[in-house]
Amino acid sequence: MVTRTVDLRSDTVTKPTETMRAAMAIAEVDDDVLVCDPTAERLETEMARITGKEAALFVPSGTMGNLISVLVHCEVRGSEVILGDNSHIHIYENGGISTLGGVHPRTVKNNEDGTMDINLIEAAIRDPRGELVYPTTRLICLENTHANCGGRCLPAEYIDRVGELAKKHGLKLHIDGARIFNASIALGVPVHRLLQAADSASVCLSKGLGAPVGSVIVGSKSFIAKARRLRKTLGGGMRQVGIICAAALVALQENIAKLEGDHKKAKILAEGLNQIKGLKVNVTSVETNIVYFEIVEGSNITAEKLCKYLQEHGVLMMPESSSRIRVVLHHQISGTDVQYTLSCIQQAVTGVHDCNGDLKEISV
Amino acid sequence: MVTRTVDLRSDTVTKPTETMRAAMAIAEVDDDVLVCDPTAERLETEMARITGKEAALFVPSGTMGNLISVLVHCEVRGSEVILGDNSHIHIYENGGISTLGGVHPRTVKNNEDGTMDINLIEAAIRDPRGELVYPTTRLICLENTHANCGGRCLPAEYIDRVGELAKKHGLKLHIDGARIFNASIALGVPVHRLLQAADSASVCLSKGLGAPVGSVIVGSKSFIAKARRLRKTLGGGMRQVGIICAAALVALQENIAKLEGDHKKAKILAEGLNQIKGLKVNVTSVETNIVYFEIVEGSNITAEKLCKYLQEHGVLMMPESSSRIRVVLHHQISGTDVQYTLSCIQQAVTGVHDCNGDLKEISV
Amino acid sequence: MVTRTVDLRSDTVTKPTETMRAAMAIAEVDDDVLVCDPTAERLETEMARITGKEAALFVPSGTMGNLISVLVHCEVRGSEVILGDNSHIHIYENGGISTLGGVHPRTVKNNEDGTMDINLIEAAIRDPRGELVYPTTRLICLENTHANCGGRCLPAEYIDRVGELAKKHGLKLHIDGARIFNASIALGVPVHRLLQAADSASVCLSKGLGAPVGSVIVGSKSFIAKARRLRKTLGGGMRQVGIICAAALVALQENIAKLEGDHKKAKILAEGLNQIKGLKVNVTSVETNIVYFEIVEGSNITAEKLCKYLQEHGVLMMPESSSRIRVVLHHQISGTDVQYTLSCIQQAVTGVHDCNGDLKEISV
Amino acid sequence: MVTRTVDLRSDTVTKPTETMRAAMAIAEVDDDVLVCDPTAERLETEMARITGKEAALFVPSGTMGNLISVLVHCEVRGSEVILGDNSHIHIYENGGISTLGGVHPRTVKNNEDGTMDINLIEAAIRDPRGELVYPTTRLICLENTHANCGGRCLPAEYIDRVGELAKKHGLKLHIDGARIFNASIALGVPVHRLLQAADSASVCLSKGLGAPVGSVIVGSKSFIAKARRLRKTLGGGMRQVGIICAAALVALQENIAKLEGDHKKAKILAEGLNQIKGLKVNVTSVETNIVYFEIVEGSNITAEKLCKYLQEHGVLMMPESSSRIRVVLHHQISGTDVQYTLSCIQQAVTGVHDCNGDLKEISV
Repeated sequence: MVTRTVDLRSDTVTKPTETMRAAMAIAEVDDDVLVCDPTAERLETEMARITGKEAALFVPSGTMGNLISVLVHCEVRGSEVILGDNSHIHIYENGGISTLGGVHPRTVKNNEDGTMDINLIEAAIRDPRGELVYPTTRLICLENTHANCGGRCLPAEYIDRVGELAKKHGLKLHIDGARIFNASIALGVPVHRLLQAADSASVCLSKGLGAPVGSVIVGSKSFIAKARRLRKTLGGGMRQVGIICAAALVALQENIAKLEGDHKKAKILAEGLNQIKGLKVNVTSVETNIVYFEIVEGSNITAEKLCKYLQEHGVLMMPESSSRIRVVLHHQISGTDVQYTLSCIQQAVTGVHDCNGDLKEISV
Repeated sequence: MVTRTVDLRSDTVTKPTETMRAAMAIAEVDDDVLVCDPTAERLETEMARITGKEAALFVPSGTMGNLISVLVHCEVRGSEVILGDNSHIHIYENGGISTLGGVHPRTVKNNEDGTMDINLIEAAIRDPRGELVYPTTRLICLENTHANCGGRCLPAEYIDRVGELAKKHGLKLHIDGARIFNASIALGVPVHRLLQAADSASVCLSKGLGAPVGSVIVGSKSFIAKARRLRKTLGGGMRQVGIICAAALVALQENIAKLEGDHKKAKILAEGLNQIKGLKVNVTSVETNIVYFEIVEGSNITAEKLCKYLQEHGVLMMPESSSRIRVVLHHQISGTDVQYTLSCIQQAVTGVHDCNGDLKEISV
Repeated sequence: MVTRTVDLRSDTVTKPTETMRAAMAIAEVDDDVLVCDPTAERLETEMARITGKEAALFVPSGTMGNLISVLVHCEVRGSEVILGDNSHIHIYENGGISTLGGVHPRTVKNNEDGTMDINLIEAAIRDPRGELVYPTTRLICLENTHANCGGRCLPAEYIDRVGELAKKHGLKLHIDGARIFNASIALGVPVHRLLQAADSASVCLSKGLGAPVGSVIVGSKSFIAKARRLRKTLGGGMRQVGIICAAALVALQENIAKLEGDHKKAKILAEGLNQIKGLKVNVTSVETNIVYFEIVEGSNITAEKLCKYLQEHGVLMMPESSSRIRVVLHHQISGTDVQYTLSCIQQAVTGVHDCNGDLKEISV
Repeated sequence: MVTRTVDLRSDTVTKPTETMRAAMAIAEVDDDVLVCDPTAERLETEMARITGKEAALFVPSGTMGNLISVLVHCEVRGSEVILGDNSHIHIYENGGISTLGGVHPRTVKNNEDGTMDINLIEAAIRDPRGELVYPTTRLICLENTHANCGGRCLPAEYIDRVGELAKKHGLKLHIDGARIFNASIALGVPVHRLLQAADSASVCLSKGLGAPVGSVIVGSKSFIAKARRLRKTLGGGMRQVGIICAAALVALQENIAKLEGDHKKAKILAEGLNQIKGLKVNVTSVETNIVYFEIVEGSNITAEKLCKYLQEHGVLMMPESSSRIRVVLHHQISGTDVQYTLSCIQQAVTGVHDCNGDLKEISV
């Protein structure tokens, strides 16, 4: 009988805490479309402060945050954006920047650490003299931490160099900072420093920070004014939105400090996995709260089977391919959960016991 | 000194009630993007039941609800939608169906009662033989109640006839039912009957029903499956969204019954305004919770000045033009508020007293 | 036996003349995409001169000319264009400005003479203060002559007033001048005067002017630079395009003078039709080369049947509805053709003789 | 004094021959938008026959041919196309498929021979189970010959394998066959065989075939019906288009046979260049009419300077980068032109003589 649930599919699965619920219950609210919701405004002011930008805007999701940001920077028809071939915007956001915004993506190879070579970025910028056949490059996007690259952090110096390149060519720089707080904690560098070179950024509140809903985008006042309008066009303007912003304010207050623990647990999990025969983890590449592990070739278990086995024991993970599994730590995973997870995986892979102690043939 | 606030700008301004806040505080939630939030699911099931449709989807706003609906019905490039020239979708939603979706709008004149002549709708449908130069008509949109036409209700028989026309030509019918509950109450006809001929509808929870955030779209299972995907593309997928859906469930339970009172107060306000010399209201056209009144020509007060005066006395309204003002009733406006409002307007127009009883020259 | 063909379906049906064919055979050409075709350049220079604009660009069709023009003026996402509800762009161009360009159309009623009331245009311009829910009005389009309004001419004074309105609100003015030469001849006003207030115009070469292919758009140098790029995006850049531009240069030289004759023949045809019992033409409204005639109610012939009968006798026309037929004159229709046409119609309507003189029951 | 011009910038620069001009002068034409131009129809029938497809459509350019093809296959919003990262559609067509059509491109690395690894293509196809966050893959595009890869030919077997992959996943296959006749000649395989697995293809008439204007797209009847409509939307429908189609028919008759000569001259040029000290050509990779050559590192001349020098001597080429130049052969380049070109380059690189025999210091 499964009694324990260890949900490692994503850091988006966290449930709002009691403090958050209490804050939501008493949040001061108003119509944020017609006028301005005071709690949303407080959150936006606070996020602008933290990120070192002029202004901020609450949006229902990180996808909308990125979509709005790209579309504002690429408001003129015929724009092209340079972004990583493994970036969240390119892979996991439904191609919305093209589908809805007509923006043409030009991808540059993401290195294992989430960076793109500066010279490859520069080579991808369209020569304005070729404008008869080229779209106009208007934007570069970075992602920090880089999800598909295992939560790797882009250091401030790298971002600065991309920012300089952007400036040199008259381009804007947007940072998909869904997990920028993880990067900040892992690098020991304040968020505003990591976003210093960026014209805009989206920051997620409902991933590691644990708020139930929402992201915030930040940038100049004029960027945010255009973003507010586009948010309405997309249908992302919400009325008494202070209810959910209240939880996000609590998240900022209480949960940033917990990220370091998530990173430690990720490291422990990675090291534990790496010691299981038949599994492989690049432990040094685990910089934040994401762990990818591989089932080595020749193993008699597939990622799908392993995930199914684990699910029966209350441990939830997502297979990425037949031999690769993604695990994401968050503040509602305890150290004991990590040990339990390791033990279940050990048993699945070695195939002797189930994790409640009963002998069991693995039939998955 | 103003102590009272009577906010008549819109029925979107209502604050969540204590019951709603309590429900939000204990709402059972899960990641509605990754899996399915149980409270969102409950709301969707309930709304499908009420509207008599197979399935439902929670969305952050009515604008997104309409946008998704139009885009799903018009998923093929080169689609045209027929809609009222005074409809909310055409006038107040940023042209999103074209801007983001490339859908071409073809407007038909809205009559004073919110209908469009059936023969004019039919004439606007593109002849498929002319497809070389015509876009393809794929959708007709109605609005019930019709906001810009003063909250007038479309009767079931009219909707049925439009539905038959749509079927005859192989078109879909979408109803912008932001205030469909108002229409239902005013007509004494269940919501599902009013939506019987519709392939889809959007229903707002944060207008008369008083929920803090959100709308729901309803339709067939396959429509909702496509809508869910498009919601993600737009960035309208939210994580622990059950928090706000919990309030919406309370709204359905507690506030539908209050709409009749809103309509009565609207009628009282309309009749009162009509008795004020210098103002004019078509009282019989006030069928639900919206009242438009006109300042008769030759008056020495403009809509803007009147609204400014009222604001100073805590009464908020929106001027539509220099001589026309919109008032929207909702459950947080009491009968006393209505009387206070009438008294303030009376004084503003006659210009003798301010409404706290002090003699005052109106300088507005 | 039919030996004669009188093609009155459109002025686009003209065949290139011998002079045009001779010019095409010796045209000097070069790659107009890679560099610049000298004959295309000559045509563009000549059209810029005639229209009084800085620059011009040859395009494959009037549809592309209008599409490019609207998209250049509305290059920023979220643009709205004000145009006639009966305009060619709105009705006959596949909704391309929305489908391909995401531009939102706002229609204003076309009066019978092709104008739109200036105050209705002004009322349709979006108030910039409402930008949260409104698209941004960026362009007004006029059509001169106005095809669907029977080839009526917009006088210079009217255009100037619309131009002033546009300037006052910071909008651009585009004129669909597919038949601007007809307007110029009919009004006795030079083309450049009719386009004086316009920021851009499209002018068709393959309608009344009789060139085999193409239109030209005109405007400022920066407008044309953007248009050239967009033409390439659409795939309208053609290589040794001088071949067809050579014919257009001949058209400018030889055929402008013939338009007056087309207008006279249209008038004669209109008067003749009006004298046929059972038909009705507003003769005074026939200002250029287009004639619409109505089959009066109670007639025992429909537009479709009449057109079919005429086709059997070599006269081609297009029914617009069951009781309305469009006729377009051009330089390859002679006075005798007009008389023959009238005679055929007379016989069809009275039903006694066929037009080769044989007695015949009309069975159509 | 320069008397000779050797234009090697592209095979689009060819001038129409006397036979073409004669054919254009007598071409039978009609309004191809209103009805059907007989000469266009003849060309389309002939191209359908040659390519082994049901139907064909003349379009003003290869860019429009590809744009229409991609948009027809991706007519449903949310489509993704897989194509080479070095393909003409992705690099040189203004991003039109996204800008105008909202299609999201997913690139796969082009190998040196113009192919993409089949397993990489398959890996790029979106898993339909991930549809909540993924666009829908609907199309794969190949390019044959592959321009940016030096005119390399894709063999029939490779195309067949991609076709099988497409079928397996329910995708369409489009071939950008701008230079498919070159591939056919070089491979000794008929065009229809090379297009056997393709659902559609665009074939250019104004490149190696030497027609002044136009491309043709081919596919099923239903594909072409949709393409015809989209051509009108884009403004690519032209009236008496038979004029230019007449030249294309001559091109098919007279110029296919000349392509083999172009390939031979390309080979001779490549070998000659490779023998010039300081230049480098991969001679074996020259399969058709395109030659890329490199200026080896350490040379004291740049591509730009070399091209400028050559221009002064009547030889036109396009620098691709500071060290790489593209040369394209066509039927209006003679063997003597090739020798003259080599001699000019030799002199430019060695820097002793100019190519008119006069001693001259190179000052470029």
